Amino acid sequence: MIAGFTEAEQRDAADPLGKFRARFSLPEDVVYLDGNSLGALPSATKAALDDAVAKQWGCDLVTSWNRNGWIDAPQRIGDRIATLIGGGPGEVIVTDSVSVNIFKLLTALVRQRPGRRTILSEAGNFPTDAYVAAGVADTLDLTLRLADRDAILAALDDNCAALLLTHVHYRTGARFDMAAVNAAAAERGIPVIWDLSHSVGAIPLDIRGSGSEYAVGCGYKYLNGGPGAPGFVYVAGPRQAAMQPAMQGWMGHIAPFDFIDEFTPGQGMKRFLTGTPPILSMLALEAGVGSFDGVDLAALWQKSSQLFNYFAALMAQNCPEFTLVTPTDPLQRGSHISFAHRDGWPINNALIARGVIGDYRTPDIVRFGLTPLYVRFTDIWRAVDTLAAIMQSGKWQRPEFSAPSTVT
Amino acid sequence: MIAGFTEAEQRDAADPLGKFRARFSLPEDVVYLDGNSLGALPSATKAALDDAVAKQWGCDLVTSWNRNGWIDAPQRIGDRIATLIGGGPGEVIVTDSVSVNIFKLLTALVRQRPGRRTILSEAGNFPTDAYVAAGVADTLDLTLRLADRDAILAALDDNCAALLLTHVHYRTGARFDMAAVNAAAAERGIPVIWDLSHSVGAIPLDIRGSGSEYAVGCGYKYLNGGPGAPGFVYVAGPRQAAMQPAMQGWMGHIAPFDFIDEFTPGQGMKRFLTGTPPILSMLALEAGVGSFDGVDLAALWQKSSQLFNYFAALMAQNCPEFTLVTPTDPLQRGSHISFAHRDGWPINNALIARGVIGDYRTPDIVRFGLTPLYVRFTDIWRAVDTLAAIMQSGKWQRPEFSAPSTVT
Repeated sequence: MIAGFTEAEQRDAADPLGKFRARFSLPEDVVYLDGNSLGALPSATKAALDDAVAKQWGCDLVTSWNRNGWIDAPQRIGDRIATLIGGGPGEVIVTDSVSVNIFKLLTALVRQRPGRRTILSEAGNFPTDAYVAAGVADTLDLTLRLADRDAILAALDDNCAALLLTHVHYRTGARFDMAAVNAAAAERGIPVIWDLSHSVGAIPLDIRGSGSEYAVGCGYKYLNGGPGAPGFVYVAGPRQAAMQPAMQGWMGHIAPFDFIDEFTPGQGMKRFLTGTPPILSMLALEAGVGSFDGVDLAALWQKSSQLFNYFAALMAQNCPEFTLVTPTDPLQRGSHISFAHRDGWPINNALIARGVIGDYRTPDIVRFGLTPLYVRFTDIWRAVDTLAAIMQSGKWQRPEFSAPSTVT
Repeated sequence: MIAGFTEAEQRDAADPLGKFRARFSLPEDVVYLDGNSLGALPSATKAALDDAVAKQWGCDLVTSWNRNGWIDAPQRIGDRIATLIGGGPGEVIVTDSVSVNIFKLLTALVRQRPGRRTILSEAGNFPTDAYVAAGVADTLDLTLRLADRDAILAALDDNCAALLLTHVHYRTGARFDMAAVNAAAAERGIPVIWDLSHSVGAIPLDIRGSGSEYAVGCGYKYLNGGPGAPGFVYVAGPRQAAMQPAMQGWMGHIAPFDFIDEFTPGQGMKRFLTGTPPILSMLALEAGVGSFDGVDLAALWQKSSQLFNYFAALMAQNCPEFTLVTPTDPLQRGSHISFAHRDGWPINNALIARGVIGDYRTPDIVRFGLTPLYVRFTDIWRAVDTLAAIMQSGKWQRPEFSAPSTVT
């Protein structure tokens, strides 16, 4: 057993955010460090879904679109998410998935700039971003350029129609300086789309103050919206009226219930809606966003930093064979911590078998989400203690932990 | 009170499908005739969602993607829907919404036919179909032509890249002859996309036998999948490999968890996936599809016809001021019945106030869904009895029933 459990307990006892763990239903025997992939279940979600199913759907039936506000859910939940990223009312709408929303933003932006023929993104970015951009480029006869992270700014040129970046990198946790990138892109007249999937609900964001005009984000990670929860789109108010996504559907029409043949985009962000939204998943997301009610995001980030430093120190002390790949400067990282080890895959499987759930990302990364609403210092201690025991015992070398899987 | 209640009771008693109503949770005091807009709540859905939330998400957390088969849900549920439309295994996948799926099919098809410059659809079709097609046309420099229903076949020409039709019309209930349209389009080399939103789970379909190669459909109407349930896509097996939707995301990649920058489409229908699917809404859809287990679709359609004839006869007898607009030939209609009345809007509101839920479609249609899994002959009797009482009393002329609404 590694040293320091009492200290971890003391840190938990002194943690002003410790009370928020009670907002979640977590299994007792699990250390959950994958809330950056799938956020934990808020206790409020069960009641919200029971009501949505039994009362709203079961009793009020189709009248719920008005009576229970289903029709306004994309805007209503969007406004709540806006407060988490520093946007204003009417600047965020919840709809579809991150992938679909990137498609909408990209098509709208590149069509505004017909003389510019490239889309720029980062090599090794979360792949859906590159796949969507490649599809847009292929469809509209543009070229997708993928530049290495430190070569992005140098690659900005007058032929670039849009820059698509993920704010916090899914593998390493490295964070871009949003304001600096925005300023460099603005000099060239290039719009930037920020993928906030690993940022929203994790680190304090000032989307307006940083000069960001376009963003998407994920509902099922730090926002605790449930598996595959809908994503969201942010467009700064003054930019909304000029946006014409290539994909337009009835929910984005200015008057969907007039049932007329001609499409006129809805006011503001409404034009980013397409089909009928998946209400059950939407209402679970609303409950997830509610887990941030009354939470000071600056305090949340402070605790994330403490969890990070504590994790890094325990690892250096007890598991020196792992290489920390996440930047140590808090301004340059998100809210997960990643270590490289050539046997990351079987080691992560061995951890899961012992009730410590992090995840593995190819080729050699073991990644742990630091979600301060429910992760305790004792969880970190248990994770490192378990990992140290696995490494000492060599049990991760058993064949069952090396079996391939479709999902990690 | 209108005549014939005893006869309605006798019809219910003799109904071999009457037992299936017990599969649904319906409020006692409501006559629900809007299952073609939002299907009723299957009793099994609550248990399925409780398990999905409390056990799968709450306890198994992120491991549920493998352990509880979340990752295969789009294919698994798709295969079950395939059996309802006459498709084969691997020909249907559940994903996104009807609107988004039309976009994927249209972009893939028109890009295969660069020399053809128009998309053809029906004027007055459900508007999302026209809006999506207009967006595709606008993006790819094509022209969208909308022809009247009876002028569609004459409008097919060698410049047409795709024909997009809704099999059963959302207002009138009129049904296209699928095989005849397919044959006429095939002569000109034109692919047809069928929107099955008002067909699937309502009328027997032989998608293969009718020569259909491309279709989309809705999960929240006759399939009872819950509000905004995901839609589905059908592509005939031999046509799948050539499909390249303009929108491509990580779930459609051949190996999403390899996290590589280059996109290679997944095998078969997998390429139609984009982002992470909304699992809670997906699993509710799975329970909804389960409400058809052991149901003979031919018997279901036979009961739909009986409900239709009974409704039409009672209306002719008791509410002659309404004009039946749905074709009376069963081969030319779907599973709802529509009547025109210039004051359809306040009349429908008055019906809802008395617990009879149908719906209104602009400009003058009152529409009633005949969903034989749970609609009884006594429900039809009650609906017409209520309507007759409203018409006689003149109470629908009260101002509160004329108030505008955003949703009907």
